[in-house]
Amino acid sequence: MEQDVNPKVEEIKELGKFGLIKLLSEKFDHYNDSSLVGIGENAAVIAIGNNDMIVSSKMFLENVHFDMTYVPLKHLGYKTIAVTVSDIVAMNALPKQVTVNIAISNRFSLEAINELTLGMQRCCDRYKIDLIGLDLSSSQTGLAISVTAIGEVDDQHLVQRAGAEENELICVSGDLGAAYTGLILLEREKKVFDVNPNEQPQLDGYSYLLERQLKPEPRVDIIEKLREADIIPTSMTNVCDGLASALIHLCKASQKGSVIFENKLPIDMLTFRTLKDLNIVSTTIALNGGEDYELLFTVAQKDYEKLKKIENVAVVGYIKEAAAGNQLVTNDDRQIELRAQGFGEIKEE
Amino acid sequence: MEQDVNPKVEEIKELGKFGLIKLLSEKFDHYNDSSLVGIGENAAVIAIGNNDMIVSSKMFLENVHFDMTYVPLKHLGYKTIAVTVSDIVAMNALPKQVTVNIAISNRFSLEAINELTLGMQRCCDRYKIDLIGLDLSSSQTGLAISVTAIGEVDDQHLVQRAGAEENELICVSGDLGAAYTGLILLEREKKVFDVNPNEQPQLDGYSYLLERQLKPEPRVDIIEKLREADIIPTSMTNVCDGLASALIHLCKASQKGSVIFENKLPIDMLTFRTLKDLNIVSTTIALNGGEDYELLFTVAQKDYEKLKKIENVAVVGYIKEAAAGNQLVTNDDRQIELRAQGFGEIKEE
Repeated sequence: MEQDVNPKVEEIKELGKFGLIKLLSEKFDHYNDSSLVGIGENAAVIAIGNNDMIVSSKMFLENVHFDMTYVPLKHLGYKTIAVTVSDIVAMNALPKQVTVNIAISNRFSLEAINELTLGMQRCCDRYKIDLIGLDLSSSQTGLAISVTAIGEVDDQHLVQRAGAEENELICVSGDLGAAYTGLILLEREKKVFDVNPNEQPQLDGYSYLLERQLKPEPRVDIIEKLREADIIPTSMTNVCDGLASALIHLCKASQKGSVIFENKLPIDMLTFRTLKDLNIVSTTIALNGGEDYELLFTVAQKDYEKLKKIENVAVVGYIKEAAAGNQLVTNDDRQIELRAQGFGEIKEE
Repeated sequence: MEQDVNPKVEEIKELGKFGLIKLLSEKFDHYNDSSLVGIGENAAVIAIGNNDMIVSSKMFLENVHFDMTYVPLKHLGYKTIAVTVSDIVAMNALPKQVTVNIAISNRFSLEAINELTLGMQRCCDRYKIDLIGLDLSSSQTGLAISVTAIGEVDDQHLVQRAGAEENELICVSGDLGAAYTGLILLEREKKVFDVNPNEQPQLDGYSYLLERQLKPEPRVDIIEKLREADIIPTSMTNVCDGLASALIHLCKASQKGSVIFENKLPIDMLTFRTLKDLNIVSTTIALNGGEDYELLFTVAQKDYEKLKKIENVAVVGYIKEAAAGNQLVTNDDRQIELRAQGFGEIKEE
């Protein structure tokens, strides 16, 4: 079915995902003053009085965004909500509502749909999010899910990618590369299973990595802690396609450069050891592995004392002038220009 | 792939689409006071001060919701926006923003994506809607589109399915059955083409029917005219799966019954003649054909004089007590109990 590749597809590859989105969206006019922030940010912003509504929408397709041979339905449900909500959180907003559309093929049982929505419910319960829309339809080609998340933030607390200033601190929540390492393990076990279906999966001791891949968490906790600490970040985004891509994106929007330090990158010990066993350099995965859903943000130097008190936030570098580009200082003191690498079929710019 | 039918699928069929949505959504708790209206209405309502935000989200899958053998991409783009927006309009709200996700397979050229988004743009331009989010991903199985529409309405003008009172007038905008008649014609031509690809499609003179199927319009104009006429309907919904289904749904939510008259049903002359040629009773299609996207609403008797001045609105009957059920009075003066018929694989209740 997909053999019929059009040579013009090359044009799409050249443009890259973000180039294509820019090209297509430029044709659209804007008519409403309430449309405060549109395409190009993590989520859209609609102004209503002094409040902003944040809207993010994502689509998840079987065999593109998830592989049902190793993703339990309950985890999948949880993840679809968590990932969509993570775009709300990336604007320093708190998620409030979600709407969900599910297209199911007739091989699905009631029990299977129940499992899927149970996972969604767990995530909604954990983050006090209301399901305000649910639609079902049939699918001929596999499971398809779309989720729209809605969040709220007042004008003062709204943070976007643009806004970082020179000398500000570059901060990352949690740790990096674990989700991608989990994916490597799952893919490896899938290959073993394909060859010998009687072989038991060898995943003991890797539960943290698998959980990071299968059941990521939106960092609502970090947003809440930043508010408690009275810190408003100057810029913010989430880490979906690796730190390098997120940082380059943030610096481009802020018209700034950056320097980060290899020895400051937050990498969990299990991630580090597992990648070492697999002969993979963990820095590469921390920079370019996908699906961490951690927050990347910048804070003014004056906020450093307040920031120190927040757990699970690492300062990894600082903002420089645009001409500096985006540099990684390695453990052996070399400077390497950061490059973004996506993992989708559509090149991530 | 889809051979592996699970016997439990029967459970899903028994529940029906709305039964299943109810069952699944009941597990979710509500945490936020701003979540005013949730599942079960045409769209969700989020309260912000005296304003309500209306949110509607839909997913469109190739070979389920549309057939690319006869749907031009530009029309498809237009229709995805129009259909989603029609759920906003059905709450007596005006659409303001949309976000769009598109998953495309690698057989798509840049030109094809351009056509698709050009159609979306046309619809946005026509109804002064801002595209505030656009995401692209790849698909292995065909084109998939999800659209989320956001609208605004003040508290006073928000109208839901519930609210109709006895003796109120049942009104329908535009005409019924044309979109489904257009679909019959397109399916017929597709069959002819499958047998003999050299045969030219015989669709001359049917452009109104084809347009109703391929490029429906959300009735934003009716909402605007109702406001100009200072009429706030007492209940409202849109006609997606036929008038019968919409009316039964509205009456159930309002805990009322209804009577409508066959000779009052607004059926376009071309629809009538075409169906006659096809040996199909047009009343059946007006009641049970899909995709009209017209508005069904009730108004108080006192508003009748104001209502008369609005073009393209027909009074088809009136609201009765719940015990009366939902009756059609035929042209030969028989009473028939209305039944809802869906066209999806998932039974529409």
